[in-house]
Amino acid sequence: MVSYDRIMKLSLERGFYFPSSEIYSDSPAGFWEYGPNGNNVKNKFIDLWRRELVRRDDMVEIDGSQIMSRNVFVASGHIDNFSDPVIACSKCKSVFRADKFILEKEGIDVPERIPNDEVDKILNQYNLNCPKCHSAFQKTERFNMMFKVEIGPNHDEAYLRPETCQAIFVDFMRIFKIMRGKFPFPIAQVGKSFRNEIAPRQSLLRLREFYQAEIEVFCNPSQLDVIPQFDEIQETTLNIDEGTQISKLTAKEALERKIIPNKLIAYYLALLYEFYEKTGIDMNQTRLRKLSDQEKAFYATIAFDFEVKTNLGWLELVACNYRSNYDLSQHSKISKEKMEIMDPVTNEKVLPHVFELSLGIDRSIYSILEHSFVEDHENNRVLLKLKPYLAPILAGILPLVKKPELEEIAKNIYFSLKKDFDIYYDGSGSIGRRYRRLEEIGVPFAITVDYDTLQDHSVTIRYRDTMEQKRMQIKELTSFFEKTKKP
Amino acid sequence: MVSYDRIMKLSLERGFYFPSSEIYSDSPAGFWEYGPNGNNVKNKFIDLWRRELVRRDDMVEIDGSQIMSRNVFVASGHIDNFSDPVIACSKCKSVFRADKFILEKEGIDVPERIPNDEVDKILNQYNLNCPKCHSAFQKTERFNMMFKVEIGPNHDEAYLRPETCQAIFVDFMRIFKIMRGKFPFPIAQVGKSFRNEIAPRQSLLRLREFYQAEIEVFCNPSQLDVIPQFDEIQETTLNIDEGTQISKLTAKEALERKIIPNKLIAYYLALLYEFYEKTGIDMNQTRLRKLSDQEKAFYATIAFDFEVKTNLGWLELVACNYRSNYDLSQHSKISKEKMEIMDPVTNEKVLPHVFELSLGIDRSIYSILEHSFVEDHENNRVLLKLKPYLAPILAGILPLVKKPELEEIAKNIYFSLKKDFDIYYDGSGSIGRRYRRLEEIGVPFAITVDYDTLQDHSVTIRYRDTMEQKRMQIKELTSFFEKTKKP
Repeated sequence: MVSYDRIMKLSLERGFYFPSSEIYSDSPAGFWEYGPNGNNVKNKFIDLWRRELVRRDDMVEIDGSQIMSRNVFVASGHIDNFSDPVIACSKCKSVFRADKFILEKEGIDVPERIPNDEVDKILNQYNLNCPKCHSAFQKTERFNMMFKVEIGPNHDEAYLRPETCQAIFVDFMRIFKIMRGKFPFPIAQVGKSFRNEIAPRQSLLRLREFYQAEIEVFCNPSQLDVIPQFDEIQETTLNIDEGTQISKLTAKEALERKIIPNKLIAYYLALLYEFYEKTGIDMNQTRLRKLSDQEKAFYATIAFDFEVKTNLGWLELVACNYRSNYDLSQHSKISKEKMEIMDPVTNEKVLPHVFELSLGIDRSIYSILEHSFVEDHENNRVLLKLKPYLAPILAGILPLVKKPELEEIAKNIYFSLKKDFDIYYDGSGSIGRRYRRLEEIGVPFAITVDYDTLQDHSVTIRYRDTMEQKRMQIKELTSFFEKTKKP
Repeated sequence: MVSYDRIMKLSLERGFYFPSSEIYSDSPAGFWEYGPNGNNVKNKFIDLWRRELVRRDDMVEIDGSQIMSRNVFVASGHIDNFSDPVIACSKCKSVFRADKFILEKEGIDVPERIPNDEVDKILNQYNLNCPKCHSAFQKTERFNMMFKVEIGPNHDEAYLRPETCQAIFVDFMRIFKIMRGKFPFPIAQVGKSFRNEIAPRQSLLRLREFYQAEIEVFCNPSQLDVIPQFDEIQETTLNIDEGTQISKLTAKEALERKIIPNKLIAYYLALLYEFYEKTGIDMNQTRLRKLSDQEKAFYATIAFDFEVKTNLGWLELVACNYRSNYDLSQHSKISKEKMEIMDPVTNEKVLPHVFELSLGIDRSIYSILEHSFVEDHENNRVLLKLKPYLAPILAGILPLVKKPELEEIAKNIYFSLKKDFDIYYDGSGSIGRRYRRLEEIGVPFAITVDYDTLQDHSVTIRYRDTMEQKRMQIKELTSFFEKTKKP
């Protein structure tokens, strides 16, 4: 398995991602930029998510504001609950996240939501002091992870959203009405969220500003097993963590064995599996793990994490939470807006429940890069086996040698394709070196123009993974590439 | 011409856009959400921009962090210069933007960057007091329009970016090297920017959180007329505001008449015109206006605004600024990083200059909606004549009447197309009413399944604008729709 550091080196050198504000000494940790190659992969990942989840399941998608009013987060519970325990040194003022510190020092796995006085007790019991200056810690405090912003000349308090979904809850009534909704009614959203992590780390894996793709499925809680589309996915295999082992179960089996409580949840977990299958992540290295009460977010009644195995261990990519009517009931209470809906099918008045798939895009991109990375020692090359529809560049157009007549045809091919496809013209360096450059960033095809091209209008297409080469007519390229744009 | 209020009504009722946090009384002004239809139009507008500008011109695109370090904005000048003059009432504490207040009360057009004491003088001279309580104003102050955020437990100061481009400048050296750049070297970025406007208004037209699509073209200032691609666009027509009249000039003519100073600027302004032509905006209602020294942003040496005429007057959609080496020289100074580059063609060492196309996405969406809106009184209908590749939904699939055998075929067509296209199944209501619903949100095609479909596998395709109807084979639909995905 390739190391985290090797992926980081590739990312820095080849423009997948790199630190934000990196030329400045005051650049804050936990902020990263997607370079040209990473940005393309990220955008294509989002396109795939739209195709395989949003459009497949007739979801609607919105794009809400990142800054929202204080009351939104009073209602959501984030003002009160979205905090970590922190300890500050009484002398040098160094600050640590208490639960991580205790885990690191004593191997004790305390929950994030441990009461402050219990932290103080543990610090006392194990005689834990500041690792920098050895002084005692001050009393444990809670550190709220939301970023506050002040709006307008009167400095009104508002917040950067810590999750994209609150806009979906707040907008639900309007959208359900506009779209003439029926249950289950899924609303999706992609965008940035912000969490003021105390110790951001590992580049894309724990960011302060990050991309989420969230789906909130509004449902009538009495109808969770009335899901006609369930038939489409009942044979889809899920990897379920049963504690002692990870079992391959179909959605139907997981439901029958009551590991998954209802058809609605089973259906969306299966869609998620089918989606990730298409990203090129090795699905044998994934699992669905049911969270314990201590691990669950404060709004969840049932929660599964979709996790993928990386060289840093299991990594959560998607939080799948049954949020019940927590959010709508809170927003209804604080805003005084009624949020009950007449179910147009059953004619019941319901305050809808919500099941969500909250997907971390940045972590998914990292996992895809890691699972695609291959060191091909035999051929002395490094390659990213990205799916063509996720590759930053679809094809390189290469004149075999630097001759005007070959360059002219190669450029004509390039110009005729470039608006429709992400392609790249590369005319300099040995052909072998140009292949290596393309392989390393995951370009699946190289198109070579040679002297035969002048005669018969054919080019060589070289496949990244097999290094196989075939002749193809220039006029066939468009339809060939068109097919590679989707799974 | 349709009124602003009519477009607002459409947007609220049909899910193009609506206020953020709208159920809450503390929802701050200047924040709006894209609903399902608006989100689709916005995403397709960005795809078109990528096709017609980014890919056409071989640009690279990045996606940087929205929160950046303080020093970034010390260097960019935003800490010192990005502020509006404000006046606060000494008694009731109401706050106004001074320049707007003076314009409104006395019709005097003072520049945004008017010194504080000159504002005080004018207020004194015209005896202007608080319009709410009639008390005197306090001394004029500057209000910085950036949103500050505090990072981590030590509350380090950072800012939400007021323009996307600073990431491009800060990252320039790394990207130029990774991509083996040559001049002119354009870097593009789409994303949110944030400005703490004192008086946000008119929904998408003056937001506090808004979408930009920016292109920064790095160039060697000695080579601004060495632009081989200029030939592609020299006959492209631009509407140039010459003060007394708006003249239609080709890019070549505008260059010869020295209205545009060099080929590089002329080339990118022409690309911009060709792009907007494809959005469906009425190009006869657009102009390029050269800004006076007083109007220009503080970093610009030459500036054109691309403006479009709306029912609210001329609206700036794109700021086209020649920023010279202002940004790189400032970042180099503050960060102490050298930013001179060896031009690989001329072998000169240069600190690159920058020409930018800073495009406002939200205002563009508003303008497209306004210019597409048609009240067809003759046929008693309202329609949005959106280009098929910008329409929120490409086609409605409609069984002519509610009969199981027609619904089955209609659903099969729907299922076979929905992953590839934004299509919509609508089986309820009279067929005329269903057409109206589709037309009002700009759906260009309606596919009707009727009893003939059962016999000959053909459907009726109805064209939104002409209401013309044709028969088409079901198996032809995919290739028909595929062609409508691009201009």
